[in-house]
Amino acid sequence: MKIEDYLKAGERIDDLQRNQYKIIQNSKKFCFGMDAVLLSGFAKVKEGEEVLDLGTGTGIIPLLLEAKTEGKHFTGLEIQAESADMARRSVAINGLDEKINIVTGDIKEASNLFGAASFHVVTSNPPYMNNNHGLTNKELPKAIARHEIHCTLEDVVREAARVLKPGGRFYLVHRPFRLVEIITVLTKYRMEPKRMKMVHPFFDKEPNMVLIEAVKGGGSMIKVEAPLVVYKEPNVYTDEIYDIYGY
Amino acid sequence: MKIEDYLKAGERIDDLQRNQYKIIQNSKKFCFGMDAVLLSGFAKVKEGEEVLDLGTGTGIIPLLLEAKTEGKHFTGLEIQAESADMARRSVAINGLDEKINIVTGDIKEASNLFGAASFHVVTSNPPYMNNNHGLTNKELPKAIARHEIHCTLEDVVREAARVLKPGGRFYLVHRPFRLVEIITVLTKYRMEPKRMKMVHPFFDKEPNMVLIEAVKGGGSMIKVEAPLVVYKEPNVYTDEIYDIYGY
Repeated sequence: MKIEDYLKAGERIDDLQRNQYKIIQNSKKFCFGMDAVLLSGFAKVKEGEEVLDLGTGTGIIPLLLEAKTEGKHFTGLEIQAESADMARRSVAINGLDEKINIVTGDIKEASNLFGAASFHVVTSNPPYMNNNHGLTNKELPKAIARHEIHCTLEDVVREAARVLKPGGRFYLVHRPFRLVEIITVLTKYRMEPKRMKMVHPFFDKEPNMVLIEAVKGGGSMIKVEAPLVVYKEPNVYTDEIYDIYGY
Repeated sequence: MKIEDYLKAGERIDDLQRNQYKIIQNSKKFCFGMDAVLLSGFAKVKEGEEVLDLGTGTGIIPLLLEAKTEGKHFTGLEIQAESADMARRSVAINGLDEKINIVTGDIKEASNLFGAASFHVVTSNPPYMNNNHGLTNKELPKAIARHEIHCTLEDVVREAARVLKPGGRFYLVHRPFRLVEIITVLTKYRMEPKRMKMVHPFFDKEPNMVLIEAVKGGGSMIKVEAPLVVYKEPNVYTDEIYDIYGY
């Protein structure tokens, strides 16, 4: 079967710059952003660990983590059937059916689906926005990925806490304006924030993303890392970004 | 009376680079650090507002805020009689007895001393370290300023919350490694963190200070600002630092 045979109408295939992996996307529905790529660069997965990505979309995070780490197995959970289907076909194209499993389902049910204390690592690039204005059906696929329509931040954290083994690590990318809520909810579920990295478009601009590592049952001391700066001048990425993207 | 007549043995007098204000310090006991200067640059005091500085040491923050803002009155609370005495003499040297009042007393008693809802703004550069190893008497003056010997972070936040008027603002400088605890304690006392600025020695190094503005009874959305970078090259301050220092 040729690669093109995996594509449905409106879909395209992109090179991930890692292990020659490809990903199927549909620019009218949803494409992965820099957020997911930076989270996969921030997350640490050790040899033999099992990983769950909550709200995996088209599977970008499991694909990148499989390429970058020695993790044993990766599961992506996605509520939107169409995204999950695209993710499953991307897994097949890359010959990763033994390493990555895409499950169609609701983040709120994650601990029922997978059982408690079943993963070493959980990742999530969840919906950022908690203002759900009137949304049309046409906008829904993108909106579900961006707005807290099907799940809240607390749902994501609660389920991550349940499915993680003791000492397990949760990696989250989110918006800085919700930092107080993020820290409050994490500590509520005894997921202690241990590492934080702000992402700034330019070194002298305010951050537009925050990367957080929380440890289930960890002690209270956080390491705030050097900031990650995206552009060194307009349209020119910093070396660190090129490195994370694998160029 | 000549300025030198205000000095006791071992003390020196430094120029604050603002309004020709001077400050009395004793390098064997305690001198103000960059932390206090950056906090005075981060804090906003509006015309007519009344300000309390919790743990004022030699009075650096009231002196700088009086010079920089249109605040109506500034109070500094300090538990160490010797520091408070130096602060009082600095106030006198600068002719500020009508604008700045230095009170010798315990942060834990602030709301009893001043009454509830009595200030528009509270500032604090509190002790950072919560590990109190065996300390000798000789080390005590510096240690009390640096370690949580007489008060904890929670004491500072609780008293700030009590003495602030509704909507009043609390400005804190602290160490990033305690960020989770800072946010947890602030929100516990309904002091919503609204602005945060990390201070990095160099733009590509991890932050060693964090500046936070919390609003009593504020809504939950924080603005994380562009980082403040101290050095542009070794031993050369950035323009922003020169600006805050008033050169």
